Amino acid sequence: MDQVDALLKGDRLALARILSQIENNAPESHRLLDILFRHAGKAHIIGVTGPAGSGKSTLVNRLALAYRRPQDGTSPKKVGILAIDPTSPFTGGAVLGDRVRMRDLSGDDGVFIRSMATRGTLGGLALTTGEMATALDAAGFDVIFVETVGVGQSEMEIARLAHTILLVENPGMGDDIQAIKAGILEIGSIIAINKADRPGVETTERVLRNMLEMNSAGYGDDADFHHGFKTDTAPALAESDAAAWQIPLIRTVATTGEGIPQVIEALHGHLQYLKTSGRWQVTQKDRLRRDLDNLIREVLFQTWLGRMSPEEYDRALDRLFTRTVSPFRLAEELIVTDYANKTQVNHLK
Amino acid sequence: MDQVDALLKGDRLALARILSQIENNAPESHRLLDILFRHAGKAHIIGVTGPAGSGKSTLVNRLALAYRRPQDGTSPKKVGILAIDPTSPFTGGAVLGDRVRMRDLSGDDGVFIRSMATRGTLGGLALTTGEMATALDAAGFDVIFVETVGVGQSEMEIARLAHTILLVENPGMGDDIQAIKAGILEIGSIIAINKADRPGVETTERVLRNMLEMNSAGYGDDADFHHGFKTDTAPALAESDAAAWQIPLIRTVATTGEGIPQVIEALHGHLQYLKTSGRWQVTQKDRLRRDLDNLIREVLFQTWLGRMSPEEYDRALDRLFTRTVSPFRLAEELIVTDYANKTQVNHLK
Repeated sequence: MDQVDALLKGDRLALARILSQIENNAPESHRLLDILFRHAGKAHIIGVTGPAGSGKSTLVNRLALAYRRPQDGTSPKKVGILAIDPTSPFTGGAVLGDRVRMRDLSGDDGVFIRSMATRGTLGGLALTTGEMATALDAAGFDVIFVETVGVGQSEMEIARLAHTILLVENPGMGDDIQAIKAGILEIGSIIAINKADRPGVETTERVLRNMLEMNSAGYGDDADFHHGFKTDTAPALAESDAAAWQIPLIRTVATTGEGIPQVIEALHGHLQYLKTSGRWQVTQKDRLRRDLDNLIREVLFQTWLGRMSPEEYDRALDRLFTRTVSPFRLAEELIVTDYANKTQVNHLK
Repeated sequence: MDQVDALLKGDRLALARILSQIENNAPESHRLLDILFRHAGKAHIIGVTGPAGSGKSTLVNRLALAYRRPQDGTSPKKVGILAIDPTSPFTGGAVLGDRVRMRDLSGDDGVFIRSMATRGTLGGLALTTGEMATALDAAGFDVIFVETVGVGQSEMEIARLAHTILLVENPGMGDDIQAIKAGILEIGSIIAINKADRPGVETTERVLRNMLEMNSAGYGDDADFHHGFKTDTAPALAESDAAAWQIPLIRTVATTGEGIPQVIEALHGHLQYLKTSGRWQVTQKDRLRRDLDNLIREVLFQTWLGRMSPEEYDRALDRLFTRTVSPFRLAEELIVTDYANKTQVNHLK
């Protein structure tokens, strides 16, 4: 476990190697994580999400610099950045993005940046991201930005690893039905209207403010959706912070640094709110339970698959392809066969 | 089974009811789907995806109208539209969107529109959407549009239900790193540059064309990502069509109808290509296998959960919350305990 010791002592090369092992799901990664997990749990994880092109990377770079050079006399924070691109661009966008970043933050040992441009299974990518955050956390990074591309649900899954979610919007959104449909305001802790020097910023700010007011007035209630299975231990979706926490709406121009001190202040404020309200614990527990459930789901499936012969599986698929049996009925049948004489299959309808 | 009979005969009310039962995962929905499934498999399912605000709904409305009033002497097609918004807007965007749509397409029995503004589990939402498409398919709809908001991975999962994927882009994208990061060109069958009357359309078209050329030159190869589990029966990700199918790039202005005939022609062309190349079958099989695997995963998890006492589960969680055991180790342990004396747990590392 020399590697882990080196990581815990702040060795960047060891950290980089371990992150790669986690990303590639190397055989030893789970052993490493067993140890790292016990040293983690201290970092402030900040999810940054918003439409592509809204300037998230530039904003995160600026915020990282601000954490490195605090203006309030506190000591500099160590900052980790995980940039996740689940859409797997074939042009290597993430790599280019990294190079742009390096100019600003290179040579600073208190900053560690890792991009992943990968197209994973849905649960898998969020899981890997969480494990990488655990490694950075154990390595002593105080603040970890998890930056995602886009506003889809997998981005939300990843953002949900976070204690604090910073939503990045731009002037020009918010004034038509489509923009409203893209609304994911309810998951945000802080909203930055970036590129605020562009026309339309007043309208966008007004629309967003109205939305937030509607939300805190209770229009945001929305029944949870589950696929007909027992859900009593399903992780609760992150509650809107709107009730107790007033979501700040901040105009920023990341390229010039305008609004950055206000965002930093809001991030500090939200961290304080989390710690004093007990929501820090709740978020942490939700995340761990979600990880556990996803792992159990996957291990059960793989174990089941391992007991099946490929021929048996193919024969079952053929009945599906000829539409003689529906997927649900077949799933039920395959599992009942598997569990026969072992246990009762419950919760099938 | 009066309801199913009525649906199969084209009764819209029966269809609406059954779609609601599927959406709400009503107890009888799986019985209904067992029958519907056998009558499905004929419709051309077209996924429509692209950034929020790119004009997808307007484009889909126009395409639906074109299928209803073919200019080439063929008979009108019956068109179903499933509009999926996984981001669950609290402002009821989908409902507003519906109302806008109704003006164009109301009173036409050959068109059926259903919106879902729901925040589901990742697998669950794609599954429900697939089941709703099965119902529309069995009800005799020839063309089914599955329209999603955003370009995230869950949208891709949903779009992957489709035989043909129509990507909607806008002028102004494609000229910086962020836009490239948002690239999901590799999943598209047809690309529409909508709002093509706006400035910057030439640049966007040039950038997209370059990307497509890079892609077909083989830069698009990207190792699949899996979370360290056995993956030999994991569904193959939809292959890029680039090799055999030249992805058409079409300028459209959905609000005026410009470019709509060209998109319709491209959709017909892709359908022909799918049928003659055998890829229709491949797509269909991939989808069914994915559905089966997801159902098995979920049923196994719920069955496992059903055998656990809440106290036992909570005690396990406590060990996790105090960081005395990592999630992976705990999952492994819980499953080994469960399977003890029943079977060997394989594929754990």
